[in-house]
Amino acid sequence: MSNPTAAMLVIGDEILSGRTRDSNMYHLAGELTKHGIDLVEVRVVSDGPEAIATATRALSDAYDNVFTSGGIGPTHDDITADSIAAAFGVPIDVRDDARALLAAHYERTGSELNSARLRMARIPDTAKLIDNPVSVAPGFTIGNVHVMAGVPAVFETMVASVLPTLTDGVPLISKTHRIDRGEGDIAGPLATLAANFDDLSIGSYPFLQNGVYGANIVIRGTDGARVDAAMAQLAKEFDL
Amino acid sequence: MSNPTAAMLVIGDEILSGRTRDSNMYHLAGELTKHGIDLVEVRVVSDGPEAIATATRALSDAYDNVFTSGGIGPTHDDITADSIAAAFGVPIDVRDDARALLAAHYERTGSELNSARLRMARIPDTAKLIDNPVSVAPGFTIGNVHVMAGVPAVFETMVASVLPTLTDGVPLISKTHRIDRGEGDIAGPLATLAANFDDLSIGSYPFLQNGVYGANIVIRGTDGARVDAAMAQLAKEFDL
Repeated sequence: MSNPTAAMLVIGDEILSGRTRDSNMYHLAGELTKHGIDLVEVRVVSDGPEAIATATRALSDAYDNVFTSGGIGPTHDDITADSIAAAFGVPIDVRDDARALLAAHYERTGSELNSARLRMARIPDTAKLIDNPVSVAPGFTIGNVHVMAGVPAVFETMVASVLPTLTDGVPLISKTHRIDRGEGDIAGPLATLAANFDDLSIGSYPFLQNGVYGANIVIRGTDGARVDAAMAQLAKEFDL
Repeated sequence: MSNPTAAMLVIGDEILSGRTRDSNMYHLAGELTKHGIDLVEVRVVSDGPEAIATATRALSDAYDNVFTSGGIGPTHDDITADSIAAAFGVPIDVRDDARALLAAHYERTGSELNSARLRMARIPDTAKLIDNPVSVAPGFTIGNVHVMAGVPAVFETMVASVLPTLTDGVPLISKTHRIDRGEGDIAGPLATLAANFDDLSIGSYPFLQNGVYGANIVIRGTDGARVDAAMAQLAKEFDL
């Protein structure tokens, strides 16, 4: 049986313009790997209703789980919730359960629940709220799509809220050996190793450090004994 | 007239597994913005022939330029060149011009041009080589797709080789003001500003720093005077 699959949709002009360096993809990728869920595709799109809805439909159809980040705040450019509702063809409005969360929070902090902040209570019909212990305004899950904030601290807490509700796969075991030789020197034996262990994923990730070429060889699989056996053969081959 | 568009395709299991933090997207996004080319979409896919070919075709059809990173080295998991050739339906083999570059390089450095290294001379028919001053093995351009290495130092030098060959757009002027107040407090006036300057893009990018909420307001446009006028109104509104 294969592991559950996932895709991520990063929403934000600020990533595409090079203003902001995205960190949510890296965080989510690591968390999913721990849970045995295979992240198969990531897309980054701009803050446009059509771009968001089209990508959401495509990824929701193709994968078991979709995680979005960005565009659910109170400002005029936060259009993710409405675009996702459109993608699913369901109505969206300020919802009582989300409004109650915000009302309690802003009463506690002495801020006004103004019309801008109320936008954060716009939740599509049938969606389930995602808990946000950091800043209260909830994310939501509709169908297989988990809609989360873009601010990293909030995104990360929402991921932590969602992950326990998902079906885990078999966590991947991953071992790495660094070889300080150019890939061209090691590619032949490595291809033989990969052919001998075709139940494992064996990747070579080259680097260039202080003018020296090397590669990290990463062996991944769900069977620890097989990963160890491949590692042993790798070590023997390259005198590690 | 609108600016040329671009998409990026990041190829690599190591990004999707969370092992490696991609930095090429951030670099390319910044370079394209300087050249007035709008990066509209990014996709990250695994090292699979179908995944690479499908994404390449979709992005090549939709945008003026496509930039790929990753998977053009000498090891068994480097399948990008063959997958891109398949996407365009053209033959691929070791090509004399690329082989000559590699032969000269390895003769100079005293390494053997073995069969693994020769894989890096596999270039689709009709493709134009992309210069690689860092490690010689070339990238290539086929149609509107620029195929480049994943190692950041090599990716960046290939981007520098390609950019002067493209049609530039009108560079975007972008100004930012940081406001140390929650988005909920500033969203109303900000929406009015965006409506008054609907020829500009006005984005609000929230942050959470040392427990304090704030937002960077970014105003972008191609007309410097309009950007300045919007900035002035923003400053007046928020007593900056």
